Order: sequence, then structure tokens, then C-alpha cells
Amino acid sequence: MPEKYSLYKAKMQQLADISHAASVLNWDQEVYMPSKGAQFRAQQLSTLAGLHHQFFASDELGEILNELNQDDSLTFEQKRNVQLTLKDYTDNKKYTTEFVQKMSKTVSEAFIAWQEAKQKADFTIFAPKLKELVKLKREECEILGYTNHPYDALLDQYEPGITVAELDEIFEGVKEQLVPFVKEIFAAPQNDESVMFQHYDKDKQWQFSLDLLKDMGYDFDAGRQDISTHPFTTSFSPQDVRVTTRVNENDLSEIIWSTIHEGGHALYEQGLLPEYYGLPQGSACSLGIHESQSRLWENNVGRSLAYWQYQFEKLKKYFPEQLKNYTEEDFYKAMNIVKPSLIRTNADEVTYHFHILIRYEIEKELIAGNFEVDELPALWNKKYRDYLGIDVPSDDKGVLQDIHWSHGSFGYFPTYSIGSFYAAQFFQQANKEIEGLENMIQKGDTSKLLEWLREKIHKHGRIFEANQLCEKVTGEKLNFSYFMDYAQKKYRSLYNL
Amino acid sequence: MPEKYSLYKAKMQQLADISHAASVLNWDQEVYMPSKGAQFRAQQLSTLAGLHHQFFASDELGEILNELNQDDSLTFEQKRNVQLTLKDYTDNKKYTTEFVQKMSKTVSEAFIAWQEAKQKADFTIFAPKLKELVKLKREECEILGYTNHPYDALLDQYEPGITVAELDEIFEGVKEQLVPFVKEIFAAPQNDESVMFQHYDKDKQWQFSLDLLKDMGYDFDAGRQDISTHPFTTSFSPQDVRVTTRVNENDLSEIIWSTIHEGGHALYEQGLLPEYYGLPQGSACSLGIHESQSRLWENNVGRSLAYWQYQFEKLKKYFPEQLKNYTEEDFYKAMNIVKPSLIRTNADEVTYHFHILIRYEIEKELIAGNFEVDELPALWNKKYRDYLGIDVPSDDKGVLQDIHWSHGSFGYFPTYSIGSFYAAQFFQQANKEIEGLENMIQKGDTSKLLEWLREKIHKHGRIFEANQLCEKVTGEKLNFSYFMDYAQKKYRSLYNL
Repeated sequence: MPEKYSLYKAKMQQLADISHAASVLNWDQEVYMPSKGAQFRAQQLSTLAGLHHQFFASDELGEILNELNQDDSLTFEQKRNVQLTLKDYTDNKKYTTEFVQKMSKTVSEAFIAWQEAKQKADFTIFAPKLKELVKLKREECEILGYTNHPYDALLDQYEPGITVAELDEIFEGVKEQLVPFVKEIFAAPQNDESVMFQHYDKDKQWQFSLDLLKDMGYDFDAGRQDISTHPFTTSFSPQDVRVTTRVNENDLSEIIWSTIHEGGHALYEQGLLPEYYGLPQGSACSLGIHESQSRLWENNVGRSLAYWQYQFEKLKKYFPEQLKNYTEEDFYKAMNIVKPSLIRTNADEVTYHFHILIRYEIEKELIAGNFEVDELPALWNKKYRDYLGIDVPSDDKGVLQDIHWSHGSFGYFPTYSIGSFYAAQFFQQANKEIEGLENMIQKGDTSKLLEWLREKIHKHGRIFEANQLCEKVTGEKLNFSYFMDYAQKKYRSLYNL
Repeated sequence: MPEKYSLYKAKMQQLADISHAASVLNWDQEVYMPSKGAQFRAQQLSTLAGLHHQFFASDELGEILNELNQDDSLTFEQKRNVQLTLKDYTDNKKYTTEFVQKMSKTVSEAFIAWQEAKQKADFTIFAPKLKELVKLKREECEILGYTNHPYDALLDQYEPGITVAELDEIFEGVKEQLVPFVKEIFAAPQNDESVMFQHYDKDKQWQFSLDLLKDMGYDFDAGRQDISTHPFTTSFSPQDVRVTTRVNENDLSEIIWSTIHEGGHALYEQGLLPEYYGLPQGSACSLGIHESQSRLWENNVGRSLAYWQYQFEKLKKYFPEQLKNYTEEDFYKAMNIVKPSLIRTNADEVTYHFHILIRYEIEKELIAGNFEVDELPALWNKKYRDYLGIDVPSDDKGVLQDIHWSHGSFGYFPTYSIGSFYAAQFFQQANKEIEGLENMIQKGDTSKLLEWLREKIHKHGRIFEANQLCEKVTGEKLNFSYFMDYAQKKYRSLYNL
């Protein structure tokens, strides 16, 4: 290994140490920190972020990267690591200190305004700060640069390489195929979901959720589960990947699918190779691919009948009384209820994409300057009527529901949908390549599936771009039809269509 | 406030942010980290330590400190902060990089050797590394400088200002007064301790320990208690001070006095003033003063009859069956059993100081070069025979029992004893100044005591040196006779002497 490359690796590991230390502080903040700890914790996190920024923007690192970028003796993987880091470095250097400070200040203020606005269901409290943010985001597109659509520059931060042109095509599929299909479901008689909403003891739910993680192959020697208000996964290294979940005594579904979802994210992080700690090769490919791992486990596996043909018996051991009059088919129907809803995070796996479609359509036009912030609530409400057939009673349940815009995260939402679409495409491929996979799942054995994901997806880190990875794994680029086929097959049967 | 002083404050806060971030990582490591997380965690902690060292040794900080040190416009407190920081800075600069690296490497190796040596009860495994360490420590004394005794240089790192001359005087008191007194106790009939060693449900013990902390005035909005193998207190800011404890189903004493002990440390940290975060004024005075706070609560309060005249009834509500045949006097006797023992951490509050005396006598002569490492076990065993009248069966229960030397912590042990002696002196003063204190304690009210400690000790941070603080609080320097009086009064009554 060239000496410069070792130096580069050491610097990247130091940067990773700083950002992972911040992750530990963030995790603690969400899970265990006492209330008064917030103020100094924010300061400590800001100091770590400042150090990370300072070191990552250093001229010394820039020189190492530029020199290595000319070095023909590097292996393919080494080259790719250097190129990706150089891109991150160059993007990072495009921002002036003034811009970064202005953005950081505006985001802080916008977040506070959003909290109040949401609590009071009053969009006008958020609007002035959101206007400033949108203006800065439009500036950011120019700073970063783009070829066709300004929104491409923002998308690239979360899903490197993806463009409006590609997303338009994918969401065209959602509009033309998924929307009419779901309207068919809406018109069909509804299934019974009462099994979910009985009283379920919290401790037993917790024990069952640990069983689920164990069965998935989550390594408890390299992680742990805790409780938090909003479930999340965080990694301090591939050897220490934490998940959180939440428990609702009167709704069994909350813990089950949040545990499986975060478990899917965590398996990806535990599957990254420790020898590439700190390098792009040791990091997740993209948010879309990350979401594909959580969604594959949550939906394609975790909401399948095959999975519950094994797990339902185990669940029954915890709750014999509550479940004595229900079969796994009843439970399967209840976990797959499709209905229009106002809140994205509570949506079922098909209408979910309407929520993302709406945000995608709004974001790209807003960033392009085709309409302004004040028009947002009306536009939002119209789209919920058009796509979901429901009226938004107030903005807290509408345009104000999600935190993302107050953080300045424009371009993030689409990764939720493409994650599900990648998941369907990967899962279809896994079924092709792993003989008898459904049968294994029926017997509670997902080890071959995990092995396949490790080999095909996890271990590569960022070496391939998402679409490239998808082609390597499935032989073609992201294709919405796999999700559509999956949804059709599953829900035609569930709703007798 | 002079601009330079604000700059100094900002730099100190940044340093505190880095070291407190490391404290969060350390806390997590002891309390929640999964086993495989150890390797990368060590690397992350080492990176943070490196950053802290680099920033604290920067010439820029040195220039600011030297300039401020000449600035006559500073207030007394500002001056004192600058002087203390400059002393720390100057001490830190005395070490060459080579020395620091050599020490760090030797400590790592010595720690590994000690673990193996202790496990195999074989001092010869530890001896070669300990020799290297002692050689380095002797060098360190010369690097740091001293006036009378080389050991003074090491003592100063833990208990700024204290010297061998002062400690000799104090430990002379231990030898001349405490040793013969305890031999009297040894000769008296022993009290019954069976109440402690029944089966006590873990969850109930845990609940009771939380009650104890609450009753002491520990602020759970600015801290929390968790379980760890070795109980400890750690602070991330005065607004987030964590304690840990341990539970033994068959020995009630473990959780009770470890909780009260750590609670005492934590009250001190919660009582430091947040506005001085990062400055000497916002940090604990010395290890001895820190220990005085834990010992005062653990022993002077927590092992008193008055305290249990209130708490015993509460304890009985958790364990009515186990305690039905016991009175608070029985319980008081059982918690104050005095007997010779091999292991320091299990010793009662009087023989405890024999353990420290032995280590003090050994350390100062070893550092002065008056004997060598190979002679240690024989010397150790002889002293245990002379002072405690017991034979050391093997080195794991003797010279190898404590971790400190393997960490290179020479000069640390004496702070344990002087902490207890400060505690007795402070508590005597508190009783003088707070009318009816014992009566309040009998009624479960320690709020006035905490208020007094906050006002007299906590809020000052490092503004006064330990002995100076002691004089301000009690009118005289550390005086062993307060401890001796306390011990005489308490144990003459307990053992009918």
C-alpha cells in the first residue's frame, strides 16, 4: 500500500472516530440523557461537528487526495475510495464559511419555528423561516452545480447519482399504476384489524422484539436495542450498531415492524467490513439502498404470510389469551390493512408512496422556483385530495407533519420510496437465486437471505453507486415494476380483487 | 470581561467538550457497550484524547495564558482561573512527546501484565513492567520538579499542594492513634452482621437505592443511575452527572453504601456552577476533597444511627420479611462491623486507612529509590502482618489487588484517606453550624446539610487549594484528630469499649 494511502486511511479513521463519537452522544441524548443535560450536550455536539468540519476541509487532506488521485499504482478499490472522498471533499469546499453559518443559523431558527407552528397548527409561524431556507437551498443548488434540474444537486447528497429525470420516470409508474390499483383496494371490503389493538403487556412485547432481532441474525454482541420516542438505528462501528424501538400497550404493530425495520438497517451496518472503517468502502452506499434493507425485512419478509407461519406460534406463546381466536392468516390480513391516511409515518406499504410522491412533486417545483412557500398548504391539501381522497383538517396533520424541511432536508423524501422499490427488486432476485427461500422463511430460517444480502450488497459499501449496485445484483437498473408486481400479487389476494 | 479572557474561556469550553465527550464514551463502555464494540471504542477514545492533548498544548493557548497572566484588570477569580490553567499548561509542556509515548506504551503493557499476574496470582509476571513504570515515574518526578521529596511531584497531580511532610504527619496520627484503637476493637466481642446477608430481591434493592439518591437531593433531571461492575460517578456537565452502582442479592450492603458513596461524589459535581463549565472554577478542587464528599455521605451520614432511624422504616417496607426480627440498632451494628481484611475495597471505615497507610509507606520509599520492585511482595506481606495481624495467602489478594500501579497512578492512594479525614472535619463543622442537624437527619431531612456543602465547598470549584478551602470552612488545616474523635466516639459505643 502506498505510504500516502496509509496516511489517507489514518486521516479518514480519525474523522470517523470524531463522527462516531458524536453518534454516541446523539444516541445517549435520544435514549438515556436526563432533561437538563440538553444544553451542554448540544454544545459538545457542535464542538465535535466543528472539529470534523475543520479536519475534513483541511488543505493537507486535499493535497493527499489530489496526489493519490493521480497515483496509477492504486487498486480499483483504493482508487474508488479516493475518488469518492475527493468528491465529498470538493463538494464540501464549495461552501463559504458565511454560507455554512447562515444555513446553520437558519436551520436552527426554522426548526424552532416549525415546532411551534406544528404545535399550534399554524403554517404562518413557519412560513417566514421556511422561505429563507428555500432561498438558501436554491442557492445551494447553484453552489453545488447541476446539469439539468437544480433539484438534482440536492438529490445527489442523499442518493448519489440519481436525477429528477430518473425519479420522474419512477414516480410516473407510481401515478399511473399504483394510484389506480390502490383505488381498487379502497373500494373493496376492508379486512379485520382488531387483533392488533388488544392489550399487550409491554415487557412481553419487548421480549418478543428481542427474539425477532435474534431470529433475523442481528448480532447482540455487536449491538443492543433500547427504547426511544422515535425508533432509529445508529452505528459506532460495524462492531457496535444500536437500534431503538417503541412499545404501545394497545397496538402490537408498533414494536413489531419498527423493530424489524431498524433491524434491517442494522444488519446492513453490521455487514459493512470493519477493515474499511472510515473509508467510503466501509460506509453505506446511499440512503435509498439503506432503506431497501430496512424495507426488505420490514415488508417483503416481515409482512409476508410465510414469515408469520413461523413467528405467529412464537408470538402466541407470549400472548396465548389475546391470540387464541386468531389464525396467522387473520394476523397477516391485519398487518396489511390498506387505507387512506393523513400521516406518512403511519401509512401502509402501498399508500406510503403517495405521501412520498406528493412531497417529491412539491419539492422539485419549489426548489425550481415554480411556486412559493405561501402556496404550500393549499397545494399540499389539493394533492392529498387528488391522490388519497382525503381532506386535511389542519396543517399540523398536513404540510407541517414532517421534520425534514425544518432541517433543510430537501431531496431526502424520495429515498424512502426508492428504498422500497429497490427492496422489491432485490427480494425478487433473492428468491430467484436462493432455492426454496420462501420455504426457509416459513421455517423461520432467514440465514441464507442474510448471507445473500451480505455478499451482494452489504460488503461493498460505497464502492458502487446505487444504480450500478442494483445492476450488478439484479441485472438491471432500478425498475418500479418489481414493486408493482409484488403489490399486485399480494394485495389482489388479500382483498380478493 | 477582557476580550482575551473570553477567548480563553471559549478555548477551555472546547477542551471540556472534547473531554466530556470522551466521558460519555467511557460511561457507555462501562454500562451499555456490547462486547465487540471494544476495539473501535478504544480507538475513538484515543483519538479524542489525542485531540485534547494537541489543543491543550497549543502555543496559541500558551500565548493567551501568558498574556492574561500579566493582565492586572482581571478579577480575583479570573486571575485564579488563569493561574491554575497556566500551571496545568506548563506542567503538561514539560513532557517530551517521547516521554508521553513511552509512558503510554508502558502503561498499556503493564496493565495487560497486571491482569494476567493477578489472575495467576504471580507477581513475577507483573514485575518487569512495573520496574519500567517505576523507573519512568521516578523520571517524571525530575521532569515535574519538587522541593523536598520526589513523591511530592506525583502527589501534586492528584492533591495539588500536599506534600510528604504533611502526609507523614497525618499518617503518624493513623499509626499512633488509630492502629492501637482498632486493636482494642479487634479484641472486643464481635457484633452480629447476619441481617445483611439474607436474600434480598434485586429489583427492590434497586428501587430502594433510587429512593436513597432522591432523599440525598441528587437531581434525577440532571443525572441517572445505572448498573456497572465497578460503581463510579462521571460528569458530562453539572447538568448531567451519572452514577452507577451494583447489586448483590445476598449482600444488601453493596448497593446501599456504593449508591450513597457515588451519590456524594455526584452531589459535588451537580453543585459545581454551570457558568464556569470548562474553567478550573467549574471543576472539583482535588481528589481528596472529592472523596470527602463521597465519604461524608457514605460514612458520617450513611453509617450513622440517626440516618437509619429514618431510612430503616423505608427499607422495611421493601423487605418486611427479612427485617421483621431486626431493629435499626441491629442494622446499625451490622453496617459498622470492624475486622481485619485483606482487600482494601471491602474494608470497614477504620481499618480502611491501614490499607492506605501501607500503600503510602510503600509508594514514597519506592519512588525515592529506597527499595526496588522485587522486594515489594515481601514488604507488603510484612506490613499486613504488622498493621492488620493477617497473613497474605497469595499476591492476588495482596500486592496485586489494586489496578492503580498498573495505570502508573502513584500518589493517588493517599487521597482516599485524606478524603475521609476532610469528611470528618467538615461534618464536625456542619454540626456546629447547622443547628439540630442530627435531629434533621433522624427525620430524613438532609437538605440543610446539602445546602451547607454547596455553599461552603461545591460552588468554589478549584478557586481555593484543598487546604485553603479546609481552613476557610473549618478555621484550620486538615487535622486528623477530627476523624479520630469521630471514630472513638462511634466505635467505643458500638463495641462497648
